Amino acid sequence: MNHEYFMKIAIEEAKKCLFLDEVPVGAIIVKDGKIIARAHNLRETLRDATAHAEILAINEACMALGGWRLLDCTMYVTLEPCPMCAGALVNSRIKTLIFGTRDPKGGACGSLYNIVADERLNHRIEIIEGVLQDECSKLLKEFFKSKRKKD
Amino acid sequence: MNHEYFMKIAIEEAKKCLFLDEVPVGAIIVKDGKIIARAHNLRETLRDATAHAEILAINEACMALGGWRLLDCTMYVTLEPCPMCAGALVNSRIKTLIFGTRDPKGGACGSLYNIVADERLNHRIEIIEGVLQDECSKLLKEFFKSKRKKD
Repeated sequence: MNHEYFMKIAIEEAKKCLFLDEVPVGAIIVKDGKIIARAHNLRETLRDATAHAEILAINEACMALGGWRLLDCTMYVTLEPCPMCAGALVNSRIKTLIFGTRDPKGGACGSLYNIVADERLNHRIEIIEGVLQDECSKLLKEFFKSKRKKD
Repeated sequence: MNHEYFMKIAIEEAKKCLFLDEVPVGAIIVKDGKIIARAHNLRETLRDATAHAEILAINEACMALGGWRLLDCTMYVTLEPCPMCAGALVNSRIKTLIFGTRDPKGGACGSLYNIVADERLNHRIEIIEGVLQDECSKLLKEFFKSKRKKD
């Protein structure tokens, strides 16, 4: 599977955030080489604390598959998931998580925690990190830089 | 504030799960002494891995308040939240979490993790645990006992 191909689509999702003044994070879910869900962060737009890209993508993928188990699915997400999203990935039984860049302040898949690899929980997820890292990281850095200029 | 009064309402929510063959967990969110959201676990019914009582209650409370910040709000939930729900509570900036009984296998508010009290994250939540613990625990134990009999 071509991880860069799918991560580029997650980045395209993240870029949609820029028109909405949302922190640019995009996520897609792939099964058998097909994209079954794509989403971007909509916390401000939906006025909902849970509306991270990953949660919205999981909701969409569950709907697409008609059940809550995302067996044999892969999530591509531009930023390392937070505790909420990492926990949601475990709850969904997703197989693989591929993320672009780490979040040292809030990441829960290797930075502050590694929830998706915790042997004590009832499911473990394979992690691949650093796919198109520079592009994913630059998108976030430029967003926060332009925010600081505006404030 | 009478914690037992509100926990009883969360238990009433949890009991609704029994008619749906859902793991019985109920949650409510209170602001200024008023209930602004009430929900119960609907994972099987909604076929959605994220449809825990706490997430659905947070969604409803955000809608009620018209924004993603649940400032000065209190969640009452019958069971210790999992990593997903604990992370969602941090993301929502809720003030207080009151839960009935611990979840030693998956709890993230004192058992396996304490995500809601993590100094490294950008928000900390006051925790009160053990309110109507016996009743909350019994509800879950009886559910799993009857499930095992059926299987």
